[in-house]
Amino acid sequence: MRLAILFGGASYEHEISIVSAIALKKVLKLPLTFIFLNAEGEFYHIPIDKMKSNHFSSGAYKKDDRLRLVRGGFEKQGFLKAKRLEGVDVVLNLVHGGQGEDGTISALFDFYHIPYIGPRKEASVLSFNKWLTKLYAQAVGIQTIDYQRLSIDSERTIDCDYPIIVKPLRLGSSIGVSIVKSAKELDFALDVAFEFDDEVLIEPFIEGIEEYNIAGCRVGDEWILSRIEAPQKKAFLDFEQKYLDFSRTESVSEADIDLALEERLKASFQRVYGSLFEGALIRCDFFVKDGEVILNEINPIPGSMANYLFDDFEAVISKLSSHLPTQRSIQPDYRYIHQVQSAKGPKIG
Amino acid sequence: MRLAILFGGASYEHEISIVSAIALKKVLKLPLTFIFLNAEGEFYHIPIDKMKSNHFSSGAYKKDDRLRLVRGGFEKQGFLKAKRLEGVDVVLNLVHGGQGEDGTISALFDFYHIPYIGPRKEASVLSFNKWLTKLYAQAVGIQTIDYQRLSIDSERTIDCDYPIIVKPLRLGSSIGVSIVKSAKELDFALDVAFEFDDEVLIEPFIEGIEEYNIAGCRVGDEWILSRIEAPQKKAFLDFEQKYLDFSRTESVSEADIDLALEERLKASFQRVYGSLFEGALIRCDFFVKDGEVILNEINPIPGSMANYLFDDFEAVISKLSSHLPTQRSIQPDYRYIHQVQSAKGPKIG
Repeated sequence: MRLAILFGGASYEHEISIVSAIALKKVLKLPLTFIFLNAEGEFYHIPIDKMKSNHFSSGAYKKDDRLRLVRGGFEKQGFLKAKRLEGVDVVLNLVHGGQGEDGTISALFDFYHIPYIGPRKEASVLSFNKWLTKLYAQAVGIQTIDYQRLSIDSERTIDCDYPIIVKPLRLGSSIGVSIVKSAKELDFALDVAFEFDDEVLIEPFIEGIEEYNIAGCRVGDEWILSRIEAPQKKAFLDFEQKYLDFSRTESVSEADIDLALEERLKASFQRVYGSLFEGALIRCDFFVKDGEVILNEINPIPGSMANYLFDDFEAVISKLSSHLPTQRSIQPDYRYIHQVQSAKGPKIG
Repeated sequence: MRLAILFGGASYEHEISIVSAIALKKVLKLPLTFIFLNAEGEFYHIPIDKMKSNHFSSGAYKKDDRLRLVRGGFEKQGFLKAKRLEGVDVVLNLVHGGQGEDGTISALFDFYHIPYIGPRKEASVLSFNKWLTKLYAQAVGIQTIDYQRLSIDSERTIDCDYPIIVKPLRLGSSIGVSIVKSAKELDFALDVAFEFDDEVLIEPFIEGIEEYNIAGCRVGDEWILSRIEAPQKKAFLDFEQKYLDFSRTESVSEADIDLALEERLKASFQRVYGSLFEGALIRCDFFVKDGEVILNEINPIPGSMANYLFDDFEAVISKLSSHLPTQRSIQPDYRYIHQVQSAKGPKIG
C-alpha cells in the first residue's frame, strides 16, 4: 500500500495542515508521496526533502511539478504528453477544515475514483456543521450540549446564562471561537464569529468540565481504538496553541479513569462512528459531567491524525488503507430510452 | 446570463436526466449550452441539434468535443492547446439522483469555482439521505412520517403495521421502492431495496392520503413559489411513469384547495428551504392528513426543474442565476508559520 498525503487547501487551517503533514512525515516509515493543494486549487507534487514549512510560506513549491486530477489518480503535465503520478494507491486527506472537512475533497476523490482515507461526503457535512453534528448525535443516542443557533441577520438575543461560548457553525478549529463572560462582551464575540460563518452556535460554557479525547476507526468488523487522553486543562485551545498541537508526534499517557468510564467513552465513540465514518480515522472529544458522557465535537481529520494516541500508528493507517469503502458501479443500459423510442418512434426526440 | 445545462451522470437516474434536459431545451428560449456527463465521468459538449435521446443511448456523443473541468469553467482539449468553453456564465445541475444530488457535483463546482444552480453540499446530503431529511425537517419544525431504518446486516424485524413502504435510504427516485402489503412480501422488497443501498427506510403506507407538490426558490429577499399541484392519484410513481413525468413541459392547473391550506403549504415550503437550499430550485412533496402538513420528500433537482408548475419558468431561472450564493475567499497569509519560524529557527522543519 503506497500512500500519498494531501494537505494545504483553501481553508483557515491551511497552515496547520502543512504542520500536520510534516508531523506525519516524521512518524510514518512507509514510503510517502506528498501532494500540496494551494489556496487557488492547484495541486503540486512535493519532493519529500522539501517538506519544510518555509517551502510553502515562501511560495517555492510553485517550482515543483503541478498535478491534475484524472480518473484513478493524478497526472503531471509533461513536455509533450501528460504522465501519471506513479506510486500512489491511496490518498490520505489531511486538509484540515474548509475543503478538506466540508465534503469537497471527498467528493473530488469519489468523482475521480481515487481511494482515500478520510470522511465521506455525508460524514463531512455532519461533522463540519456543528448543528448537524448535534442532530446526528442525538439521533444515534449520544448526548450533546444545549445550544442556540443564531444567524447573521437575526436578533442578538441569548437564551442561556453567561458564561457562554460562541462558535462559527462550520469551522473545524478554534478560529473565531470566544468565551463570553457577560452580555457586554457579546457583540464583539458575535462580530468575530460572523467573520467566518453566517451562522453561529452558542453553548453554555461549563467551567472545569472533564474532557476526554479518543481516536479510532473501524476496519471491517474490527474496531481500532486509541488510548484515551485527558487533554491539558485549558479553557479552550486558541489558534496558536492548536497550531503547536497539530505538530504533535510524542505519544501521550492514558487518562487516569476507571474501567466503567473507559468503556462508556469507547462505546460512545463507536456509536458516533457507526457506519457514517467508514474509511476515516476520527477523533471524538467528549465531556463528562456528573458521570454522563457528552459529545463536544468530532474531528473527522484530527491534527497529525492523532498519531500520538496510538501504540502503532503506522499499522492503523495500513489496515485502514486496505479496508476502504467502495462505490457502487452504475452503468446505464438505456433500457427506458430504447423502450420509449420503439414505442413512440421519432417523436421523443 | 448564459446558461449551460449539465446532465447525465453516474446515477440510476442517468436516463431521466437526459429526458429532463431535452424537456428544458423545449421550454427555455435563452441560449443554452449542453454538457453531458457520462457514467465514466467524462464531460462532452453536445451541439444543440444533437440533443435527442438516441444520441446518448447509441454512444454517438463520444464524437462530440470532450471537456475538462478547470478553474472557473470547462475547457476543450484542442490540437495544440486547450481552449476555454465560451458562452457559459452559470451551469444548471440537472444530474438527477446519484452524483447530481449526493453533493458530488456541487463539490466539483465549488472546488472549480463554477457558478451553478442546484443544491449545495449540505443541502444535497440532507435531501439525498431520506433519514437525514427527517432529522433536518423535524429540527426546523416540519412534520415527517414515522419511520424505521434497517441496515443490510441487521435483523429484518418490522416495528409498524402493514401495509408499509420500503425505500432505499439514498435514492432520489422511485427505483427500488416497494409497497409491502404483508409480512410474506417483505423479504423480496428488502432484497430489491438493498440492491441500491446498504440502508433502507420503512414507513407506514397510508392509503388515499392527499398529496401536494410545490416548487420554488428564494432570490435575495424574494420568494418565488410555484402553483401547488395535486399530483395524479397513484399509489406511487414507478420508474416508467416517473420517466415520462420527467419530460413534462405542459403546465398544470392549480390544486383545488382552500386559502388556509395553501398558505400552510407555502409556509412549510419556506421553512424547509430556509437558507439551506439557497441557489437551488427545489420541489417539496407534502402529504396532508387530518389537516396536518407532513413532508414526504424534497427534490433538490426536480424532474425538468418542475417547469410546468411556473407561469414564467424562464424568468425564475434568470433571476435565480443572478442571485447565487458565493464562497468566502480564503487566502492564507502564513502568519503562524512565519512566527514559529522566527521563534524556533530551523527546528520546525
